[in-house]
Amino acid sequence: MSELERVLAHVDDTLDASLERLFALLRIDSISTDPAHADACRRAADLLVDELAGIGFEARRHDTPGHPMVVGQLGGGTDEKAGDGPSLLFYGHYDVQPVDPLALWHRPPFEPALEESDAGTVIRARGAADDKGQLMTFVEACRAWRDVTGALPARVTVFLEGEEESGSPSLVPFMEANRDRLAADVALVCDTGMWDTDTPTISTMLRGMVGEEITVTGASLDLHSGMYGGAAINPIRVLTRILADLHDADGRVTLEGFYDGVDEPPAETLAAWASLGQDDAEFLGAVGLSTLAGERGRSVLEQVWSRPTCDVNGIEGGYTGEGFKTVIPSIARAKVSFRLVGRQDPARVRDAFRAHVAARLPPDCTATWTSKDGSPAIVMPIDAPPFEAAREALSAEWPRPAVQAGCGGSIPVVGHIRDILGMDSLLIGFGLDDDAIHSPNEKYALRSFHKGTRSWVRILDALSREQAPPT
Amino acid sequence: MSELERVLAHVDDTLDASLERLFALLRIDSISTDPAHADACRRAADLLVDELAGIGFEARRHDTPGHPMVVGQLGGGTDEKAGDGPSLLFYGHYDVQPVDPLALWHRPPFEPALEESDAGTVIRARGAADDKGQLMTFVEACRAWRDVTGALPARVTVFLEGEEESGSPSLVPFMEANRDRLAADVALVCDTGMWDTDTPTISTMLRGMVGEEITVTGASLDLHSGMYGGAAINPIRVLTRILADLHDADGRVTLEGFYDGVDEPPAETLAAWASLGQDDAEFLGAVGLSTLAGERGRSVLEQVWSRPTCDVNGIEGGYTGEGFKTVIPSIARAKVSFRLVGRQDPARVRDAFRAHVAARLPPDCTATWTSKDGSPAIVMPIDAPPFEAAREALSAEWPRPAVQAGCGGSIPVVGHIRDILGMDSLLIGFGLDDDAIHSPNEKYALRSFHKGTRSWVRILDALSREQAPPT
Repeated sequence: MSELERVLAHVDDTLDASLERLFALLRIDSISTDPAHADACRRAADLLVDELAGIGFEARRHDTPGHPMVVGQLGGGTDEKAGDGPSLLFYGHYDVQPVDPLALWHRPPFEPALEESDAGTVIRARGAADDKGQLMTFVEACRAWRDVTGALPARVTVFLEGEEESGSPSLVPFMEANRDRLAADVALVCDTGMWDTDTPTISTMLRGMVGEEITVTGASLDLHSGMYGGAAINPIRVLTRILADLHDADGRVTLEGFYDGVDEPPAETLAAWASLGQDDAEFLGAVGLSTLAGERGRSVLEQVWSRPTCDVNGIEGGYTGEGFKTVIPSIARAKVSFRLVGRQDPARVRDAFRAHVAARLPPDCTATWTSKDGSPAIVMPIDAPPFEAAREALSAEWPRPAVQAGCGGSIPVVGHIRDILGMDSLLIGFGLDDDAIHSPNEKYALRSFHKGTRSWVRILDALSREQAPPT
Repeated sequence: MSELERVLAHVDDTLDASLERLFALLRIDSISTDPAHADACRRAADLLVDELAGIGFEARRHDTPGHPMVVGQLGGGTDEKAGDGPSLLFYGHYDVQPVDPLALWHRPPFEPALEESDAGTVIRARGAADDKGQLMTFVEACRAWRDVTGALPARVTVFLEGEEESGSPSLVPFMEANRDRLAADVALVCDTGMWDTDTPTISTMLRGMVGEEITVTGASLDLHSGMYGGAAINPIRVLTRILADLHDADGRVTLEGFYDGVDEPPAETLAAWASLGQDDAEFLGAVGLSTLAGERGRSVLEQVWSRPTCDVNGIEGGYTGEGFKTVIPSIARAKVSFRLVGRQDPARVRDAFRAHVAARLPPDCTATWTSKDGSPAIVMPIDAPPFEAAREALSAEWPRPAVQAGCGGSIPVVGHIRDILGMDSLLIGFGLDDDAIHSPNEKYALRSFHKGTRSWVRILDALSREQAPPT
């Protein structure tokens, strides 16, 4: 039996104890957005420091103006087992979403338990999937390596935050102040999902984002449409014109230069996506739709993974209560977001949107802005050795080979890891579409936890066989 | 001294007693929209029955499923003074708006008092102008005629409702069930204002109204723009296109056939409006605007009095709280209203709007509707004898001659009086733009109350000299 096989067998043999440790973490109501739970967040951080220290990590809690960071280090230069492979930075988060509406939970959200379901045995609790269960797959993989071999096969820094569900206000300052402590060759981020229950997935493209809230102001006060209708400008009329003009009849975004830096995915990527067997009709049918609404002639995966989009996420103006009120409001507002791909520049997209608005503002109307920080898209170097090594390791663990997927959303920490720490990230996670993260009755498949841990055991082994990049 | 002069002098001599009677009515918190004030509404109705009975009217309270109606009759066939003139129906309402926000009142809203202000002596109280003070000008005019001459110069039916500020749910059924009781030759409605402090006004055009709330539904639930952005239709995008397309670049409404039945006002009407000396810049400047937003090349008065308009009065969709949420909402809603003029048909405008929407609904989107009853515009026969008589009477009372004005708003009861009772209405009132009706610190100028009463004394006299229409 190889060393790897012995470590994997140990994961299997000690699954109950691993679950107990996860359950201890799940019992802590570390809801980061609610100040009343600040103490719980600190207790979760302390528990994780103890976990890591118990495995042999040099670990400590780092307090911030918000919730604490946890950083632990093990292996590397002083550890002969670490070998020549790249040093690794693992990222996860121990904070969770609020549990409202509590009435919809069929068991208390912070009393974790195994439950039998149609989808097999699941771990039911807030945070089971997002992200406590996922981060513990990595921690338990490290523990198994240490238990069996006395060492990790690579130098590993574990970096856990407690503000991911509340905007991560302390993240960038902490990363900037701790560049040396967090230095590594490649990052591992476990906060994503699998293509399906049998197909492990590395997310290799993340869309970027620009958000702008626009407020259009007309008259200095709300007016009565009987007295002013026809004479006074209605900011809702102005805003609807601005927003309607954002798309042309073919679903393309009309902003000047919007598609600059948008590349077609390589042929092999498109082929890989095509081989996933995505059923567009089923994808849309699940939410009551039948027709793709984006750019004509592109599949769901192309639209969501490789194309930039614009959506109005919220709009508000005038009287919105029951019945009618014939008001011409003084202001109207909308929240608009752009998902970016390829080399689109967030600052240029923001400028183009503001120019689009300025060109459509009539006399007497002003626009004011609230910006959400822009982030560019991220495209991972899928041909780089760590990506290939991880792909092979995942493929060895699961029934089907690992796939490289796009991701329509944004994961800001990945941009920070690239920009502040100068690393690519391997986005590997074992969540499933029906995990109900952020919703009542969140769960994590026991299989995700078990095989996820085994996956990291394999990935640590595979990466340790890679040559570290020249320093 | 003529009979008329003696009655006018009596109004002057008894002003204090008139005010006391008005104050008694103003002390009653008859807020019709709040069920907790139902008893106050009944007490206000009873007080008015007593007032009318005290003058000699055969008056009674008529209970309804909502708040009571008050109807009183005096004069006519059995009263030799009534002469040959037309019989008159007077309409007013004794209910008032809520008083929120109470903190902004500088005295309790139901403790009326005379106050000195920059605009002269004012009666300060909720309802002082809308409509208790106004309706009492007519009641006090009747009292003066009876006190001095023992009779009214015309057959008068006083009809007061208590639901005007809460949608008048009982009005149409009551009018339909009491056609005979309310029969007359012409109606007098005292719920409007003066052109300025010296210029009495008869409102002769009222715009009609069609209201539609439209709800556009896309997916069966709210979606995340990271997972669905680009693929799933966004109902806000659909709705903004629908609404933006309602106006062309020249400010005209684009609905098919919208301007059918819209006539240019007669040259003499336009000339009369021009002579009012309306200052468009001042009108707009008062609310922070400088540029007319309606159809190009038309003045404020033309736009507000003689042109149909379309306004979005409210819009709502997606996330509208603090910060950002990258949601693609399942639904988006708007409340849209059309002000109608001339012979525009409310039903056809509604149909044209629905067709406009249907033509812009993409696959997967549905539109559902909540309608507000449509009412056509009303154009009074300004050449008819009662209008001319009233104009002369008003001109005799005030420093400047009476003007005939349009009215951008709608007064539903005027349509009901026409449609159910078959009468035109003389819309004469003494409110001023700064009366703050529906707002804190509502007032009615003492001069409006005093000269308003004198105005009705003169109008009753003038109308009594007209020939009643052949029956």
